Parts: sequence; C-alpha cells; structure tokens
Amino acid sequence: MTLLDLLDLSGTFFFALSGAMMAIRKKMDLLGIIVLGTVTAIGGGTLREILLGRFPPFVFQQDQYLYTALCASLAAFIFVEQLTRINSIVLLADALGLGTFVTIGISQALEADVTPTGAVILGAITAVAGGIMRDLLAQEIPYVLTRDFYAITCICGGVIFILLEKQGLPRRLTMSIVTAVVVLLRLLAIRYNWRLPRPR
Amino acid sequence: MTLLDLLDLSGTFFFALSGAMMAIRKKMDLLGIIVLGTVTAIGGGTLREILLGRFPPFVFQQDQYLYTALCASLAAFIFVEQLTRINSIVLLADALGLGTFVTIGISQALEADVTPTGAVILGAITAVAGGIMRDLLAQEIPYVLTRDFYAITCICGGVIFILLEKQGLPRRLTMSIVTAVVVLLRLLAIRYNWRLPRPR
Amino acid sequence: MTLLDLLDLSGTFFFALSGAMMAIRKKMDLLGIIVLGTVTAIGGGTLREILLGRFPPFVFQQDQYLYTALCASLAAFIFVEQLTRINSIVLLADALGLGTFVTIGISQALEADVTPTGAVILGAITAVAGGIMRDLLAQEIPYVLTRDFYAITCICGGVIFILLEKQGLPRRLTMSIVTAVVVLLRLLAIRYNWRLPRPR
Repeated sequence: MTLLDLLDLSGTFFFALSGAMMAIRKKMDLLGIIVLGTVTAIGGGTLREILLGRFPPFVFQQDQYLYTALCASLAAFIFVEQLTRINSIVLLADALGLGTFVTIGISQALEADVTPTGAVILGAITAVAGGIMRDLLAQEIPYVLTRDFYAITCICGGVIFILLEKQGLPRRLTMSIVTAVVVLLRLLAIRYNWRLPRPR
Repeated sequence: MTLLDLLDLSGTFFFALSGAMMAIRKKMDLLGIIVLGTVTAIGGGTLREILLGRFPPFVFQQDQYLYTALCASLAAFIFVEQLTRINSIVLLADALGLGTFVTIGISQALEADVTPTGAVILGAITAVAGGIMRDLLAQEIPYVLTRDFYAITCICGGVIFILLEKQGLPRRLTMSIVTAVVVLLRLLAIRYNWRLPRPR
Repeated sequence: MTLLDLLDLSGTFFFALSGAMMAIRKKMDLLGIIVLGTVTAIGGGTLREILLGRFPPFVFQQDQYLYTALCASLAAFIFVEQLTRINSIVLLADALGLGTFVTIGISQALEADVTPTGAVILGAITAVAGGIMRDLLAQEIPYVLTRDFYAITCICGGVIFILLEKQGLPRRLTMSIVTAVVVLLRLLAIRYNWRLPRPR
C-alpha cells in the first residue's frame, strides 16, 4: 500500500464522517446516516468515473471504499458527541482528503482524452461532488457554492498540476506537490478566514 | 410475457403513481406530474444501467416503460381523490414494485464485473434511487433516509440473494424467493411500524 | 462556424447567464456563480452524452463551452443590475437557446439506438436538465415542473422533428424548422401567458 492509497482511504473515511455528521444533524435514521456518509465519500470519484466512461466505477469493483465509508458512518453514529468537540481535527482531515482526491482526479482525467481545462474540472468534481450530493440529499444549498474558500483550492491545485506536468516533472512528484499545495491553501483559508468576492 | 415482466411493469406503474401523487401535493402542473411520475418509475433502473455501463439505458430502447409511467401519471391526475382514499392498496403495490426492482437490479449487476457487495448496493439503487430523485425534485429530504424501514429491506433481500446464489440455487428460484422476502419484510414493516435506530 | 454552432454557443451563453443570475439571487460567492452558470449551460448536454454512452462528454474535449459559460457568469457578476433591467432580452435569448438545444439533442439521439419516443425525451433532457440542476443546486423546486409553458415546447418540437424526419425531409431543413417552431412556441407562451392544466 502506497502513501497515496493510504491518503485515499483516509480521505474516504473523513469525507464519510462529514456526510454522516450532516445526516445526524438532520435527524436521519441509521440507514440514512450510512447512505449520506457513503455518498459523500464515493460520490465524487464515482461521478468522475462515469464522466470518463469507466464502468463499473471502482467502488463497485473494490470493496475497501464502501467498507471504509461504512465504518466511518458507524463511528459517527456512536461517537457523535465526541466528534463535535474535535472539530478542528475533522477540518484538518477533510483538507487532507480534499488534496488527495483532487490530485487523483486530475491524474486519472489526464489518461483520458480530455483538454487540460477539462482535467482541472474533473479533478475538482472528484473532490467536491460528493459534498454537493451530501448537501442536496440533506436539502441544503451546497456549502461549496456559498461560503468559504473550498472548491477554489481544487482549481488552483489543478492549474498547478497542469503547469508542472508541462515542465516535464515526473508524475509522482507533481502529485505530491499538488496534494501539499491544496492542503496548505485549505488550511490557510480556514486559519485566515479567506473569502471569495460576492456581488453587492 | 413472464411473471417477472408483469411485476416489472406493474412496479413501474405504481412507482410512477407515487411520483405523480407527490407532484400533485406540490401543486405542479400536468407536465410536472408526468415528469415526476416518470423519473420515480425509471430513475433507479436508469441509474443502474449507467453504473453498469449499458448505453443507451433500456427505457430509451423499449417504449413500454415510458408509456406505462405516462399512463400512471395521467391516472393520478384524473383520479387523485380516489387514490388518496385507497392508500393501503398503493402501499401494497409499492412493496411489490420494491421487491421486483431490487431482484432485477441485483440479477443484472451480477452479470457485470462487480463484487457481491457492489451487486447488493446496485440492487438497492435500482429500487430506491427513483424515489430519491422524486423527493429531491419535490424539495423534500428523501423519505428513505429519514423514516421507515424501506431501503433496509432491499439490503436484506440483496444479502439473501448472494447467499442463495452461493448455495447454487437456480437463478429463477433465487429471484422468486428474494422478491417474496422483500415484499414480506416491507409489509411487516408497515404493519408493525418497524423503525431503525436513531442517534440520541 | 455554421449558424447552428453560433446558436449553440449563444444558447450556452444565455443559459449560463440564467444560472449565474440565480446564484446571485441566492447570495452565492463568485465561485458559486461560475459553477451554477456552467452547470446550467452544459448540464443538459452532458447528461445527454452520458445517456447516449459518449465519453468523455464533449465539454471536456472542446473548451469553448466551458469558457463561454465562464464569460457569461463573469458578465452576470459584473453587470447584474443592468441585466435585471433587460429581462425581456434575456427571455428571448433563453428561448433561442431552448430551441437550439432541443434540436441538437434529438438530432444526436437519432444517431444512437433509441426509439423515436426516447429521442424526443433525450431532446427535452438536453434542453431542460441544466435548468433543473440549477434549481436543485439553488434549492428551488425546478421551474419547469411547476410553472409556465416551457418543457412542453421541447416535447412539441421533438414530435414535429420525428414527423418531418419520417416525411423524408433533409435533416438540416428539419432542424431549422424545429428550432424555429420551439422558439416561436416559447415566445407565444410568454406573450400570452400560456399555462398547462393543474389538478383541482
């Protein structure tokens, strides 16, 4: 198991946690908690696989993603009170997941016949579409569209990926740099409360 | 026409009915009623086809599903008052649709290159995704996530399907048993008001 | 560049405008405005490509659609006050986009292995699914389901397309007629405030 696989599974775990916590806030039952956790964790990657024409998507072929999401959802169900107290750790973990997912997403997209712009979009979709599905299922306006400096870090990471790739850097090095940049940008955004402009 | 085909079309009819009734409650116009009925009836099967990589999905190749959903939606539009009075028949019909759709879904998924866990999930998606789309279009938190012992019957049915298949039972027999089990579980859940646990 | 390409890109522009305006009304930030504009503009075409099994969908292979949607979203962000004043021009432009998208959608669907009914549905999906995604992301009941004579013009256009095609008319002529008919129907519907029946 490589470091990337480890980050991928821990990203899956923490994304599922955020979905399950949302389900708990919305007073869903145990099944709703598991579904929302799972959709949040695998929704983005599954949508990317669909858009790239890869069937069946990897989550139906490798069970570790579904079971990781299941464990995270059950953990949220059991430890809900403790989890709300360690919110800063959850935010850090979410940033790690974001960086990993966007890097994997762009990397996969570049294997297919898409433009660099298309690859950047597909990277961002991989990272944020699961969260958008979570918010829609919970009947909230998607978080990434209204508040916070979140999806924009994926776009920045994606552009840097394309630029480094054009410089001829080895793929593994590019992926490490981009993951680190996205995580760092996200943590800075949380720390300094960065915001995007809004219309007057 | 086999018994399975008959159950499949009547499941389509009754799922469309539930979508059209929701549209009527939400004061949609005639087109909204038809769209919501149709999406509820064919949404789950279409999503399964997409995830299994089968294009174009069957509803665009065989017209009977679209026209069955259209008839059910028009019937709901015309007989709305009578239908609300015979709600228990509608619930029974919905249970039959649920059992049939989950059985067809798993059976189709097992032909593709997915894990048993993946097949169980795809069976449940076939049965409940149309209802989730109905609720999202009507701006309600999906029913299956919050209340009632509904999607869990599909998971139970799916696990039994996999176990019977491993015992070497003929596919047709397995499908009959699983359909009956899901319908029975669902009716028991309605009768005895079964609930899943919720967080405190 | 043919007239159809021109109409296609201007349809993309005006659909993105309607998405971006909705995002502004919902107090989204700049990224939310761009995402909502883009999804509204390309969502329908992308869903059609998925249902027809064409991967990756054209927007990831030809950048002009993404950049047109980006420009429209930025224009909405900057000129929001002026745009609300020229609402009738926006409605006219939207009608042009509707006619173009439905015509392109049916035409593409007929190349694939679908029934005529399926092609009509796929044409309507091309034209209205982006707007449905816009409304869901903004947490509104989709406009096309509740009010106005909108999606029904796509169905009418689709049926006329199939009839003309059966008469052996050349495809280009059929496409021109259908686009004109849909635009005209839509403008008449706005002018005379046409409505579909509703249940009592």
